[in-house]
Amino acid sequence: MQSKLLSRRDVEFLLYEWLDVEALARRLRFHDHNRESFDAAIDTAEQIATELFAPHNKKNDQQEPHVGPGGVVQIIPEVKQALDAFSAAGLMAAGQDYEMGGMQLPYTVERVLAGYFTAANVATAAYTFLTMANANTLLKCGTAEQIEAYVKPMLEGRYFGTMCLSEPQAGSSLSDISTRAEPDGEGRYRLSGNKMWISAGEHELAENIVHLVLAKIPGPDSKLVPGVKGISLFLVPKFLPGGERNDIALAGLNHKMGNRGTTNCLLNFGEGSRRPGGKPGAVGWLVGQPQQGLANMFHMMNEARIGVGLGATMLGYTGYLHALDYARNRPQGRHPAAKDPSAPQLPIIEHTDVRRMLLAQKAYVEGALGLVMYSARLVDEQHTAEAPEARERATRLLEFLTPITKSWPSQWCVEANSLAIQVHGGYGYTREYNVEQFYRDNRLNAIHEGTHGIHGLDLLGRKVALQDGALFKSYAAELRATVSRARAADGGELAGHAGALDAAWSRVEEVTRALYAAGDMNKTLANATVYLEAVGHVVVAWIWLEQALVAARAAPDDFYLGKLQACRYFYNWELPKVHSQLDLLASLDTTTLDMRDAWF
Amino acid sequence: MQSKLLSRRDVEFLLYEWLDVEALARRLRFHDHNRESFDAAIDTAEQIATELFAPHNKKNDQQEPHVGPGGVVQIIPEVKQALDAFSAAGLMAAGQDYEMGGMQLPYTVERVLAGYFTAANVATAAYTFLTMANANTLLKCGTAEQIEAYVKPMLEGRYFGTMCLSEPQAGSSLSDISTRAEPDGEGRYRLSGNKMWISAGEHELAENIVHLVLAKIPGPDSKLVPGVKGISLFLVPKFLPGGERNDIALAGLNHKMGNRGTTNCLLNFGEGSRRPGGKPGAVGWLVGQPQQGLANMFHMMNEARIGVGLGATMLGYTGYLHALDYARNRPQGRHPAAKDPSAPQLPIIEHTDVRRMLLAQKAYVEGALGLVMYSARLVDEQHTAEAPEARERATRLLEFLTPITKSWPSQWCVEANSLAIQVHGGYGYTREYNVEQFYRDNRLNAIHEGTHGIHGLDLLGRKVALQDGALFKSYAAELRATVSRARAADGGELAGHAGALDAAWSRVEEVTRALYAAGDMNKTLANATVYLEAVGHVVVAWIWLEQALVAARAAPDDFYLGKLQACRYFYNWELPKVHSQLDLLASLDTTTLDMRDAWF
Repeated sequence: MQSKLLSRRDVEFLLYEWLDVEALARRLRFHDHNRESFDAAIDTAEQIATELFAPHNKKNDQQEPHVGPGGVVQIIPEVKQALDAFSAAGLMAAGQDYEMGGMQLPYTVERVLAGYFTAANVATAAYTFLTMANANTLLKCGTAEQIEAYVKPMLEGRYFGTMCLSEPQAGSSLSDISTRAEPDGEGRYRLSGNKMWISAGEHELAENIVHLVLAKIPGPDSKLVPGVKGISLFLVPKFLPGGERNDIALAGLNHKMGNRGTTNCLLNFGEGSRRPGGKPGAVGWLVGQPQQGLANMFHMMNEARIGVGLGATMLGYTGYLHALDYARNRPQGRHPAAKDPSAPQLPIIEHTDVRRMLLAQKAYVEGALGLVMYSARLVDEQHTAEAPEARERATRLLEFLTPITKSWPSQWCVEANSLAIQVHGGYGYTREYNVEQFYRDNRLNAIHEGTHGIHGLDLLGRKVALQDGALFKSYAAELRATVSRARAADGGELAGHAGALDAAWSRVEEVTRALYAAGDMNKTLANATVYLEAVGHVVVAWIWLEQALVAARAAPDDFYLGKLQACRYFYNWELPKVHSQLDLLASLDTTTLDMRDAWF
Repeated sequence: MQSKLLSRRDVEFLLYEWLDVEALARRLRFHDHNRESFDAAIDTAEQIATELFAPHNKKNDQQEPHVGPGGVVQIIPEVKQALDAFSAAGLMAAGQDYEMGGMQLPYTVERVLAGYFTAANVATAAYTFLTMANANTLLKCGTAEQIEAYVKPMLEGRYFGTMCLSEPQAGSSLSDISTRAEPDGEGRYRLSGNKMWISAGEHELAENIVHLVLAKIPGPDSKLVPGVKGISLFLVPKFLPGGERNDIALAGLNHKMGNRGTTNCLLNFGEGSRRPGGKPGAVGWLVGQPQQGLANMFHMMNEARIGVGLGATMLGYTGYLHALDYARNRPQGRHPAAKDPSAPQLPIIEHTDVRRMLLAQKAYVEGALGLVMYSARLVDEQHTAEAPEARERATRLLEFLTPITKSWPSQWCVEANSLAIQVHGGYGYTREYNVEQFYRDNRLNAIHEGTHGIHGLDLLGRKVALQDGALFKSYAAELRATVSRARAADGGELAGHAGALDAAWSRVEEVTRALYAAGDMNKTLANATVYLEAVGHVVVAWIWLEQALVAARAAPDDFYLGKLQACRYFYNWELPKVHSQLDLLASLDTTTLDMRDAWF
C-alpha cells in the first residue's frame, strides 16, 4: 500500500532530480555518504514513523497528557516506545558529527527524516525536534562541560530539551520578560519567574529535561534592564547533577485545540524555594555570554522556523494523501450529464470539483515541500559549501526566504487540510477519520515561532532593507535565472509561466520601492502581512517553475505529468491572486492604519 | 458589559434603519406588532441565550453526549434546562400563527432571535432549529391529524424533530437512498434502512422524537425506483401513539470535530423487528403525496440554508466580539517606532496588523449578517407582501441568493474565526478560551445542507439558467438600483464603490454568458465553485454598499464611521480579489477538468 505520510517518489524527485543532494556527498563532511546511505536513512525513518509514530497519533490526541497523582504528567505509553525507537536508531543525532555519535547526514536529508515523523505524529515528534534544537544551541554556545553533561545524553535520547522564552505577560514581546537570574557567587545562577507555552516542559519520557531559559541578570541596583539587551540564556535542568530535583514546578498544562499530545506547560521557576531558609531560585548555568541570550537563542531560529514550515507542510501532505485515497474509494453520485440513476455511483475523484480540491492540495503541499527542501539545501550550502561566496549567497537567500518558508506553509497547508476535510464530506468532520486532527494540529503553525504578522514585519521591515537590499537582490537574481532557463528550455507553456513570474516579480520590486518611499515607517509597514502573503505566493510560483523545468526534461510519465499539471494549476489559479494584493500595497492603502478602536 | 454574542446596535441598524422591518407591522399578519414588541422578543432571546445557553457551551463541547447504560444517550442537564426555558418563553413558535400558539413574528425578527441562540451555543440551539424545520414541513404537507398529534407538541417544546435524509451510501447523492417503506395495508408503512448524520436523532430531552424520513415505496415487483423520483416522505415517531417504542435503534453516535453537543446519529430503522414473528419495520405515516418526498422536504430547504448561513455568521460574529474584547485588554508590545523599552506595553488593538484582523472580521461577519437578514426579509416578502408581483420578485431573488447566503458565511466566517484565534495568539489556540471552539464548530457549515461545491453547481448550473435567466436578471436589477442610488446620493467615496461594484457585476454577466457559450456542460460547470465564490464576494460588496448608504445618511458617530470603514475595507481589500477569479472563469480554464486520477 502506498504510504499516506509522504510520497517517496516525490522525495526522490526533490532530492535527486532537483536539488542534487548527491553532489553533497562529494564534500568532505559527507564523503562517507551516497544515495544508498541517504535512502537507507529514509527507509529507517519511514518505517519507524509508520510503525511506531502513526498508530498512536489519534490515541494521543484523544487521551492527551494530564496531571496525575503526585503531580506526575501521565502520557500514554506508546509515546515513550516510539521515542525510544527513534533514539535507538540514532535519529536524534542524524545530522551531528561522528564524534558526537552522529551520522553526519546533510540537513536536507535529515529534514526528510523529520518530515516522516511530523506527518505520522506531530505531537510525539515534537519532543525530538525540541531536543535537537536545544542540543544544537548548546553545541553552538555552550561550554565543553555543558556539552558533555547535557548534549551527549540528549543526542542519545536519554535527556530531552525545551526552549523557555515566553512568559504570561511576554509572548511576542520578548523584551518584556521578567524572569530573574541572580548569581549565587559559586558560578551558578538562581532563576525565578514564570515561563508560558513550554512545549515538553514536563513529562517522564526521559531521565532529565534540559531547559534553555531566557532570563535577565539584575544590575547592581537589583533592577532588570528593560528591552532585549538585558536578556541572557541559561541552562536549567529538571534534575541537578547530584540527582536532586531543581526548583521548577509545573503550574499547569495548557489544553490546546490540536497538538494535544505534546505537553505544553506553565512552569514556575524558583517558586518552591522562596520559603524561608531555602536558597531562592532554580539553579542554572549561563550559556554563552551574558546579555547575548536572544542572539544565542536566535542562532537556531532559522532552522526552528524551517522546522515549523516543514511541520505545516507535512500535516498538509498527509492530509492530501488521505483525501486522495478517500476520493479514489468513495462512490458517490454521477456525472452531471448522466441520465441513468440506476448506473453505479462513481468514485468521487471523477467529479471535477473533487479533482479541483485534490489538485489545489497537491499544488499547496508539494509547493510547500519544495520551498522547505530548497531552504534546507541552503542550510547545507551555508554550512558546507567550499567557496565563501557560496556560503554567503546561501546565507542571504536563507535570511530572505525564512519568513516565507515558515509562513506560507502555515497558511496554505491549513487550507489544504480544510480541503481534505471537504473531500471527505461529513466523514471528514468526524474524529473517526484522521483529517480533522491534521486541521486542528496545523492551525498552531501560524502562531508559534513568531506569529504570521510578525513574519510580515520581519520580511518587509527587516529582511528587505538589510545590507542595503542585498538579500532581496540575491533572491531576485535566483528568480530571474529560473525565468531565463524556462524561456531558453521551452518555447511553450513554461515560457508563458516564466513571463507571468517575471511580471509578478517586477511588480514586487516596484511595490517594495513604493512602500519604502512612503516616508513613514507606520505607513510602509501597515500592510506588511499582505506583502508577506503576496511575495510568498510569487516565491512558491518560482518553486513550481523550478519543479516543472525538471519534470519537462524527463520522459513523460504520470508522475511528471502530475507535476506539470500542478504547476499549471499554480500559474492559472494561484499566481494571479497576487495582483490585487500588489495593487493594494502599491496604493499605500491606510484603511487598517486609520481604523480606530471606537469604530469597532 | 457589552454582549459578546451579537451587537444590539448592529441589529437595530439592520432591522430598523436598513430593512425597515417596522413596515411589516402594517401588514395584516403582523398588525399586533411594532418596534417595541420586536425589541421585547429580542430582549427575551438575548437574555435566555446569555443566561442559559452560553454558560454551558464549553461544557457541552468537553463533555459531549455519549451512550450510557441501557443505550440511553447521556447529555449534561444544562441542555434540557436551556431548551425548556426556550420553549416556555414561546420561542419554538415565535413565527407561527396565533392559532398554533405562536407569536406571528416576522421571519426577519425571528432570525435575530435564532441568531442569539446560535452565537451562544450552536449545539444546544440545533435541537430547536431542527424541531422548527420539522414542524414547518408538517404544517406545509401534513394532515390535520399529523399537525394535531405532532406539530402542536413540537411547538410547545414537548416533542423534538429531526430530518432523516442521508444514508451511509447516499450523502450528497440522495437519489441513491435505499430505505424501504412497505404499506402495511392499514394505512401505515413499515420502514427499514439506515440513516446517517441524523442530528438530534436520539436523546431524552423531549417526550418524543418526530423523525421525518425519506424512503422509497417498492413497486409491485418489490423493487425500488432508482433516482429521486421514487422518494416519499414519512413521519416516524420514536414513540408510537400508544406509547410503545417504535423500531428505531441508535446504531452509533458520530464524534465530530465541533458541534459536539448535538447528538449526531446513525439510526437503524426496522432492524429489531426483523426477527421471526415480529412485523418487520418501523411504523410510519406518509407525509404528503407519494413520490413527492424530496419536493416536500425541499419546501423548507431555502429556510434551512438561510439557517446554515445564519449559524456560520453568528459563530463568526461572536468570535469577532471575543477577539475585539481581547485586543482591547491584552497589553503586548509597542509601536514600531517606539524606542523606549521601559514604556508600558500597548493594548494590542493599537497594532495595525491586529486592527487589520479585527476589521476583516467585522467586514466578514457584518457583511454576512446583512446578507442573511436581507434574505430573511425576502422570506417575509415572499409570504406576506400584498402585491403578487412583490411576492414573485422576492421569490426570484431568494432563489438566486440562497446558495450564496448559505455558502459565503460558511467560508468567510470560518476565516473570521481563524483571525479571532490569531488575535488571541497562543491563548486563542487553547480550550481555556472560547474562540477555538467557534472555529471547530463553524467548519461544519460548508459541509451540511449541501456541500460548498454543490451550491456552486446549484448557482451556476441551475439558478442562473432558471426561467430563462429571470432570477439572475432580477438580482442584477437590484444591484444596479443600489449602484444608481450610490451615484446619486454621494459624489465621493460611495460613488467610487458603486463604480467598482458596477464593473464587477458587468464582468459577472460577461463571464456567465461565456460559460454558457462553452457548448459543453462539463466545461461550463467545471469551475462552478469559483463562480459561487466570485459572485458571493460581489453580492457581499453590494450588501456593504447598501449598509454604507444608510450610514452615510446619518449624522456621523463612531458606529456609522465604523460601518463606512468596514465598507471601505471590503471595497479596497476584498472586492478586487474577484477579478482573478473572473479572469479564470472567462478563460474557460480546464486545468481541473483535465487532471487525471493517475497524475496525482
